[in-house]
Amino acid sequence: MIIENSKSRRKSNKLQKIFANNVIKHRKRLGISQEELAEICGYHRTYIGSVERAERNVTLATIESFATAFNVPPQELLITKDE
Amino acid sequence: MIIENSKSRRKSNKLQKIFANNVIKHRKRLGISQEELAEICGYHRTYIGSVERAERNVTLATIESFATAFNVPPQELLITKDE
Repeated sequence: MIIENSKSRRKSNKLQKIFANNVIKHRKRLGISQEELAEICGYHRTYIGSVERAERNVTLATIESFATAFNVPPQELLITKDE
Repeated sequence: MIIENSKSRRKSNKLQKIFANNVIKHRKRLGISQEELAEICGYHRTYIGSVERAERNVTLATIESFATAFNVPPQELLITKDE
């Protein structure tokens, strides 16, 4: 029997917001602009903007790209401020 | 000037493998089958299988679904064994 459980399947952008805040935090830590980060990551400046506005449901490969650019472990980009 | 930097843009499935290992680890911790995890998450059993084989470049929303099912913070699913 397949039990329908929408609770954990529901679309949420909570993690998108956490990721966005961490991208902003690390970009500012490096003292670089969205355009400079775009150059480092190989993405377009407007894409960085949409990520920082939490508009993107990014994938593991993209998380890895940002983590490499920031020189932090990937999981650092999913933690909240309080942790 | 836009500098092409393919280093951090390159597609890698390193993080897919880490995520896959953590899904397997937490599913076994709960003592449940792929089918049972599929029921909890609201995904299909074959999708769970493909995630556990590191074939899926999953998104933040999917990471969040698994984290909710496992009752762990999302970043727990991106850490390596040694951390």
